[in-house]
Amino acid sequence: MATTAKYGIFELSLEGPATGNPFTEVDLRAEFRYSNYRRTVSGFYDGGGIYKIRFMPDREGQWHYSTIANEGRLDGQEGSFICTPALPACHGPVRVQGRFHFAYDDGEPYFPYGTTAYNWTNQETDIVAQTMETLAHNRFNKVRYGPFPKHYLYNKNEPLLYPFVGGFVEGVADASEVAMPGFIGGKPSAAYQFDFSRPNPAFWQQFEAYVMALDALGIESDLILFHPYDRWGFAHLSREENLLYLRYIIARLGAIKSVWWSLANEFDLFFERDEADWECYARAVEEWDAVGHLCSIHNCREPYDYSRRWISHVSIQRVDYHSHVELVHKWRERWQKPVVVDEICYEGNIDSGFGNISGEELTKRYWDVAVRGGYCTHGETYLRDDEVLWWAKGGRLTGSSPERIAFLRQINERISQIDPSPQMEWDLPWGLSGKTFRYETNSPFAPYATAADYMLCYFSFAQPAFRNFYLPEDVSYRIEIIDTWEMTITKLEGGYRGSCRVSLPGKPYIAVLFVREG
Amino acid sequence: MATTAKYGIFELSLEGPATGNPFTEVDLRAEFRYSNYRRTVSGFYDGGGIYKIRFMPDREGQWHYSTIANEGRLDGQEGSFICTPALPACHGPVRVQGRFHFAYDDGEPYFPYGTTAYNWTNQETDIVAQTMETLAHNRFNKVRYGPFPKHYLYNKNEPLLYPFVGGFVEGVADASEVAMPGFIGGKPSAAYQFDFSRPNPAFWQQFEAYVMALDALGIESDLILFHPYDRWGFAHLSREENLLYLRYIIARLGAIKSVWWSLANEFDLFFERDEADWECYARAVEEWDAVGHLCSIHNCREPYDYSRRWISHVSIQRVDYHSHVELVHKWRERWQKPVVVDEICYEGNIDSGFGNISGEELTKRYWDVAVRGGYCTHGETYLRDDEVLWWAKGGRLTGSSPERIAFLRQINERISQIDPSPQMEWDLPWGLSGKTFRYETNSPFAPYATAADYMLCYFSFAQPAFRNFYLPEDVSYRIEIIDTWEMTITKLEGGYRGSCRVSLPGKPYIAVLFVREG
Repeated sequence: MATTAKYGIFELSLEGPATGNPFTEVDLRAEFRYSNYRRTVSGFYDGGGIYKIRFMPDREGQWHYSTIANEGRLDGQEGSFICTPALPACHGPVRVQGRFHFAYDDGEPYFPYGTTAYNWTNQETDIVAQTMETLAHNRFNKVRYGPFPKHYLYNKNEPLLYPFVGGFVEGVADASEVAMPGFIGGKPSAAYQFDFSRPNPAFWQQFEAYVMALDALGIESDLILFHPYDRWGFAHLSREENLLYLRYIIARLGAIKSVWWSLANEFDLFFERDEADWECYARAVEEWDAVGHLCSIHNCREPYDYSRRWISHVSIQRVDYHSHVELVHKWRERWQKPVVVDEICYEGNIDSGFGNISGEELTKRYWDVAVRGGYCTHGETYLRDDEVLWWAKGGRLTGSSPERIAFLRQINERISQIDPSPQMEWDLPWGLSGKTFRYETNSPFAPYATAADYMLCYFSFAQPAFRNFYLPEDVSYRIEIIDTWEMTITKLEGGYRGSCRVSLPGKPYIAVLFVREG
Repeated sequence: MATTAKYGIFELSLEGPATGNPFTEVDLRAEFRYSNYRRTVSGFYDGGGIYKIRFMPDREGQWHYSTIANEGRLDGQEGSFICTPALPACHGPVRVQGRFHFAYDDGEPYFPYGTTAYNWTNQETDIVAQTMETLAHNRFNKVRYGPFPKHYLYNKNEPLLYPFVGGFVEGVADASEVAMPGFIGGKPSAAYQFDFSRPNPAFWQQFEAYVMALDALGIESDLILFHPYDRWGFAHLSREENLLYLRYIIARLGAIKSVWWSLANEFDLFFERDEADWECYARAVEEWDAVGHLCSIHNCREPYDYSRRWISHVSIQRVDYHSHVELVHKWRERWQKPVVVDEICYEGNIDSGFGNISGEELTKRYWDVAVRGGYCTHGETYLRDDEVLWWAKGGRLTGSSPERIAFLRQINERISQIDPSPQMEWDLPWGLSGKTFRYETNSPFAPYATAADYMLCYFSFAQPAFRNFYLPEDVSYRIEIIDTWEMTITKLEGGYRGSCRVSLPGKPYIAVLFVREG
């Protein structure tokens, strides 16, 4: 009998009609059964008369399936397969764990340290290869990107393939010339014509190969389903066309364990859509996604109502240019979900404020967010002569923040999930990890405090030469001074308890980690 | 006939009773007349049977005066003096000019680039001398300080003299031991006893000498009348005692042109006082101050209602640890007054967040505030073995921000008063100076903009390698790239108009100045 490893992909390939419009005329589904447990997934047309059904089994043992279709040849197909144990290092799809954090399906904690390369899959093969090489040699474990090509700054090239059948129409002025000014929210160019009822299998075969390549690298794909930076018309489909597209992408990619759904990048720049549209698409994703992948939506200005049931985690863009990191624990409180700040400005030197902060500044923001119990997403926008900016096209990373972010990830994995202390100091945020307990302090500022197995505070731009700490009297802590920029950890001699004055380097970007002894 | 230069001090010294309580029992005033213009000032007792009346004439020509007192020898004294032209470089007291800025009484613009040395006048003479030397060799033109000694971190020494008659009582435990924990808001120590109805002339003679020494250096004294950091009881006077003190200090110091009144430092840490108290003291200052010196009040947490009529300017402390500079133009709008951020954290390395930012960070905040049409105040809190921290005691400055602040002051004086542009960009604040005009832009972001004789934008922590600017088509501008940290100004060749792409250094702390040609 066929076998599929747990969290792998079981694929059923069937022959069916190649004429008419197989995307709209053929309705193919399959029910997968395991004991009294059932899941239904949609099939999809892959061109050349081939229909496919993909399914991710999450229970070891024997599974049965049967197809349901409005087409004789596709209907009533039955079979079985054995789900074998997960491959080594395969932990399944990422889920929300404990309200504010993430873990893989098998319980292994997952800490999102992602990056952004919105349109890397629509680039020339040599750049795509560079991107994968870069990702293989960095420590990012999530990439934000989507299938649709992008029409935006440093990102106006034609994709190699189009996601729908159609393309550039000869005789109309050069496509890039017909682009709307401002890049966002305008009408699509008349230079293209597509049949939005016909996804282009060649495009999707390539796209899913890239998703699976990241999967093989252990990298999650935070897939942006819609974005407004468009000249082809992909941001202007009718609701019916959008639902067809969603059903198709979910049927094709939904069985890949490492997929997340990001309903939109900057949903509020779709001036033709309102909340009812987004809620409709969200319901569709929820209905068709048999795995229950993480799902969110990303804002430009005001955040979406992240308390909506279908939203697994907050995927926010800093709303204000100045005020952001210090809000992270408040965002957690407000929405009661994990907070991932998926745009907190990129390291780079382009003209716009979203993409010209220093490596120091981005690293600082990562730490400021981490000690408040949230997560950040990286992006890089350094100008290059070839205009291959990582954030847009992938390629190479040259910034100073990635290795510092990896250093933080290492510490985060060591101390595990960080939650903000209930006693944040006005000038010093505290993150706690592990078992917590309350104690009476000797502090002149607070009679009680909460201690934990690990306590991490971060001084950000401040440069104190020392700090008075008020630890529990009856528990001893080891102290590690972390220079987050130099990536050094200095372990202080001996144990600390009660009131203690700790010398610090007197320079910015210092964190202090307290590790409970015994 | 006696002469006094305009904005100088005319002093009348009279002999009167030395017995009883001259501070409470003798009521002495004088009316000064110039044509049909009249001003009344209070006299004060200076010890040894000597009563003084001080007056700052602000009109050239002949003045007459006559005294009114409840004491025969002091009553009915009459005389005249000639007010001669102001001495060179003497421009009179600072006033509010044009709603959001300052100018001396003679119309010469004044740009507050002050520093903070709260308690410098109560230190040993060698430290006081160091302080004056430091101020003489820097470019600060205002100091925030007050007469009362301070009981706070790095500032617990006894003053050389007390402002009231009385002092330490032998037999009670060592004074510093009796200090309340937390420094603020507790009961005063029992180790002191004062007669709050008797100011100590020796103290005030010394204090006013220091105020006049700064005056001679061209430095304004932003005098803090009350502060809560106290172990002697000076923060716990009754309302009647406070009014007596206010009348005394105003009579003594009110004729010094460079005095400002800061009703309180951190008024909201006086837990025994409410708004009615502050309003009462404000009315008293207003009534007794014949010059109409600038007057404000300074918060710790929530700001005072700066729209009150008696408040000349906003003297705010950043309310939030992270969110401050970006609010300055909103504070201007809210209160319709000049905004001086009198605490925006100090350059230093002490443990508390108010005093451990870097010189880079403080310089950055100065620029971020300046382009939004506000002003900042400096302070320095570097640890020293002798614990003489500038912010507390004066002494020496060792930080990196003072020379950068002086560099900004130089540019501010060159381009004069800066107001925020009505078209702030989300990632770039713009300050305008001189004549403004609206124009149609080629910008994809804004159809109209406001130009001016000088336009200054500041990139703060951003590090763009270039920026597209959308200048007027019909006016030419010279462009200067200012490295605010290196203190260099690079003038670009030729004139700029319309849309232009300007290369920038690609590092933080860069400002760009546009100077209208012709």
